[in-house]
Amino acid sequence: MSKKNEVTTRALSGFMELLPQEQIAFNNMLDIIRNTYETFGFVPIDTPILERFGTLLAKAGGETEKQIYQFTKGKSELAMRFDLTVPLSRYVVEHYGDLTFPFRRYAIGKVFRGERAQSGRFREFYQCDIDVIGNEVLDLRFDAEIPSVIYTIFREFGFDAFTIRVNNRKIFNGLFEGLNIDEFRVDIMRSIDKLEKIGRNGVEKELNKLGIVSEKIIRIFDFLNIKGNSQEILNALKQLDITNEKFDEGIEELSKVVDMMRQFDIPEKNFAIDLTIARGLDYYTGTVYETQLDEYPEIGSVCSGGRYDDLASTYTDRKLPGVGISIGLTRLFDQLRSRDLINIDFVTKTKVLVVPMTEDIKQSVSIATVLRKNNISTEISFVEGKLKKRLTYANKKKIPFVIFIGEDEIEKKVYMLKDFVNGTQEILSREDLLQKLKRAL
Amino acid sequence: MSKKNEVTTRALSGFMELLPQEQIAFNNMLDIIRNTYETFGFVPIDTPILERFGTLLAKAGGETEKQIYQFTKGKSELAMRFDLTVPLSRYVVEHYGDLTFPFRRYAIGKVFRGERAQSGRFREFYQCDIDVIGNEVLDLRFDAEIPSVIYTIFREFGFDAFTIRVNNRKIFNGLFEGLNIDEFRVDIMRSIDKLEKIGRNGVEKELNKLGIVSEKIIRIFDFLNIKGNSQEILNALKQLDITNEKFDEGIEELSKVVDMMRQFDIPEKNFAIDLTIARGLDYYTGTVYETQLDEYPEIGSVCSGGRYDDLASTYTDRKLPGVGISIGLTRLFDQLRSRDLINIDFVTKTKVLVVPMTEDIKQSVSIATVLRKNNISTEISFVEGKLKKRLTYANKKKIPFVIFIGEDEIEKKVYMLKDFVNGTQEILSREDLLQKLKRAL
Repeated sequence: MSKKNEVTTRALSGFMELLPQEQIAFNNMLDIIRNTYETFGFVPIDTPILERFGTLLAKAGGETEKQIYQFTKGKSELAMRFDLTVPLSRYVVEHYGDLTFPFRRYAIGKVFRGERAQSGRFREFYQCDIDVIGNEVLDLRFDAEIPSVIYTIFREFGFDAFTIRVNNRKIFNGLFEGLNIDEFRVDIMRSIDKLEKIGRNGVEKELNKLGIVSEKIIRIFDFLNIKGNSQEILNALKQLDITNEKFDEGIEELSKVVDMMRQFDIPEKNFAIDLTIARGLDYYTGTVYETQLDEYPEIGSVCSGGRYDDLASTYTDRKLPGVGISIGLTRLFDQLRSRDLINIDFVTKTKVLVVPMTEDIKQSVSIATVLRKNNISTEISFVEGKLKKRLTYANKKKIPFVIFIGEDEIEKKVYMLKDFVNGTQEILSREDLLQKLKRAL
Repeated sequence: MSKKNEVTTRALSGFMELLPQEQIAFNNMLDIIRNTYETFGFVPIDTPILERFGTLLAKAGGETEKQIYQFTKGKSELAMRFDLTVPLSRYVVEHYGDLTFPFRRYAIGKVFRGERAQSGRFREFYQCDIDVIGNEVLDLRFDAEIPSVIYTIFREFGFDAFTIRVNNRKIFNGLFEGLNIDEFRVDIMRSIDKLEKIGRNGVEKELNKLGIVSEKIIRIFDFLNIKGNSQEILNALKQLDITNEKFDEGIEELSKVVDMMRQFDIPEKNFAIDLTIARGLDYYTGTVYETQLDEYPEIGSVCSGGRYDDLASTYTDRKLPGVGISIGLTRLFDQLRSRDLINIDFVTKTKVLVVPMTEDIKQSVSIATVLRKNNISTEISFVEGKLKKRLTYANKKKIPFVIFIGEDEIEKKVYMLKDFVNGTQEILSREDLLQKLKRAL
C-alpha cells in the first residue's frame, strides 16, 4: 500500500499484533482463563499500567530493573509495570482494610519489559494471574487448589497431554543447609545447571573447586538422581538421611500437596513431582509449580508460580503469605500459533448477514434485532452494488447464513435463507427462521 | 497499615483503581459493551499500548501532543497511545491486504493522556471503540446503524432517559462557506461558545469586530435559534436560504440518517437533531454524535463519534472513509459512581462456599467441581479455625449459599445447605442440591 511521508505503519518489534481472526482465537483463550478464575471464586482487580518508579523498583532490581520502561513526566518518575505481582502487593497494602482475607484475586493485563528483541520474547505481553493472599497465615490446601485451576484451564484449552510439575523450595534449601553448604548455593546451582553440557565429571570438578568435599558432592548427586513416580520420589527423599528441619518440612508439605491434588481429582498423568524446577528463583519459599505441554517440551513452562511467605515485605511489616500462578498468554499463543495449533475457526463471530434488497430496511433491521437479542451475531449488508459483490463479503468473512429481504419477502412477511454450510436455500416465516437458526447455531 | 521504607503505596493520581466489588460492576459494563459490539458483528483488534512516537505524532499535534507520555528506550522514541483511532489507522494501512471491507472493528483498551490532574479527568482510561471503515466508499446507512449500537448499550446499562444527539458537520461548514466567512470559522465558533456568558449582544459585538456584516450575523443567529423536533429543524434549515452545495448535502444526509434511525427502531425520545454539537472538531467531516443522560446533563457526552472522510491520510493516499464512536468507560463509571448510580451488587461472583468439616476434602472438591461445571462460581473454605470464623468470610463476601460437609454427610453422601437469603437450612442429596442451586442462581 502506498505510504505518504514515510511514516512507519508497522507495530514495534516485540509487540504482538494480531489479525482479527487470530484475535478472536486469542480472546477465546483469554475468556477461558477469566471464566475459570471466576468460577473458582477469584475476584478481579485492575491496577494501573503506570506506577511510581520508586514503588515498582522497591521490589525489582538486577535484570528486571534494566528492562523497566521508565521516564519522567513533569515532576513524576514513572514506570510501566513489568508484572502483576508488584502492583498486587502495593494494592493489598493500600486497600488492606477494605479486603476480605484470604483475598482471592485475579488480574489479566498487559505488562512491559524492554528486553532485547528475540524470537518468542515479547516486550508487551499479557499476564493472567491468580493469587490467594492470607492475613498472617494461609492454609497449605490452597497450594493444592491452585493446580486444579491450572488443570481446568488447560483441559478447556483442549489439551490432554500436559504435566503440572510441583516441587517445594524448602527441600533444596534444606538440603544445602543440612550439608552446611548454604553459602555456596548460587554457585552450586550454576554448576548443576550445566549438568547436561559438561556431565557429572565436569560438575564434580567445579564443586571440588568451591571446596565442597566428595562426601557432600555424592549426596548432592544422590538427590539429583532421584527419579520415579510421586510416591517413589517422596520415599527416596526420606531415605537421603539429611538432618534439617526445613528439608523435612519441605518433604512433608510436598507430600501433603500431592496427596490433596489427588483429592482435587487431578489425574495422575497430569501432575508429577519434579525436584529440579524453580531452583533459581529466590522469590518463592515453598511449593512451586511449572506446567509443561508433554508434546512440546521445548516451549518450556506455560504456567508457573508458587508459594511465598511474604507478599509485601517492601511495603509493610504485616505478614501476607500467598500462593499464585501466572499464565503468559501472549507467548503461549505465539508458540501455539507457530506450531499451527491455533484453530482459526472464525474470521468473524458474525453468523448471519441480512441483505436488504430494497430501500426500505425496516424488516431487515427488525430481524437483525431479534437475532441479536438471541445472542446470534448479525450484520446487515449496507454495501452498494451487485448481489455478487455483497455475497463475496459473506464468503470472505465465512458467514454461514445469509437472509435476503426483497420486495416479495416484505410483501409476504417472509425471509429467504441461504445456508452456505449445506448449500440450501429456503423461504421461511419469521418464527421458523428463528427456530432454524437457533438450532443450527 | 504500617509502612516500611516510606514507599508510597497509593496509585498515581488520575489513575483509577477500584475495589473488587466496584471492579465487578465495572467489568459488567465492559462486558455489555463488548457483547453488544460482537452481536453487531464487529471483530476485535488489540493494538500495542506503545507505538513509535513518530507514528502517533503524525496524526496528533497541539494540546494532544503535550499530553502524550513519551520517552526514549535504547534508540527508540516511544509513546503511549492517547486514543484508539490513530492505532486503528496505522493497523488498517499495515494489514490492508488481510482485511475485509467494510472493516467493522471494535477495540477496548486503556489509553493515556498526561493531562493536568483534576476531578473527573483521568490520565489512564478505557476507551471502547467501534468503527466501520470503507474501502474508497462507505454507505450512509452505516451512519444510522451506529446510533442503534449506542441505543442498545445504554438500554442494557439500564438507562431509559438518554438522548443520542446527531448533527452533520457539513451544515455548519456549508453555512460559513455560503456566507463567505469560512476564513473566520475558528474565531466565530469561539465567540458562539461564549453565547451563554456574554449574551447575543456580546457575541454580535465580537463578530462585528471580525468584520462580519450585520446581515450575515443575523443569518448566523437565525441558524443558532433553530429549535424543535427533528422534522421542524430540518424544515427550518431548508428555509434558511443558504446557497451552498455542502450545506444542502449536510441537510440531505442528516435527514436520511434520522429517517433511517427510525427504521432502526430507535425511539423518538432517545434521539434528537442538535445543530450545536461537535462544532469544534476538525476531524469529523459528516455525521456527528453525542449522547447525553437526560437526568445528568452536567456529565456531558457519554458516547461520541462521527463520520470522517479519510481515516489514514497521514499514512496512505488510499481513501478510507469511516464512521465510529467511542465510550470513555472510566470517566462514565466514575461519574455514575459519584452519583451512587452504580449498583455494587456483588462483593464477589462466588455463589457457593463449600465448608469441609473433616480432613477428607474429596466430597467437597467433587461437589465444587460439579457446581463450577454448571457455571456456578464456587469456593472451598480452607481457613483453619472455628466455624464462626469461616462463616464470617461468607457473610463479609455476601456469598448466598454455604454447603457443610462433615463426617455425617460423607457417610450418608448428603449435603447440608444453608441458604443465607431465606435463612433456611436443609439436608439434600447431590441431585436435589444441584437442582435447587441451579434454580436459585
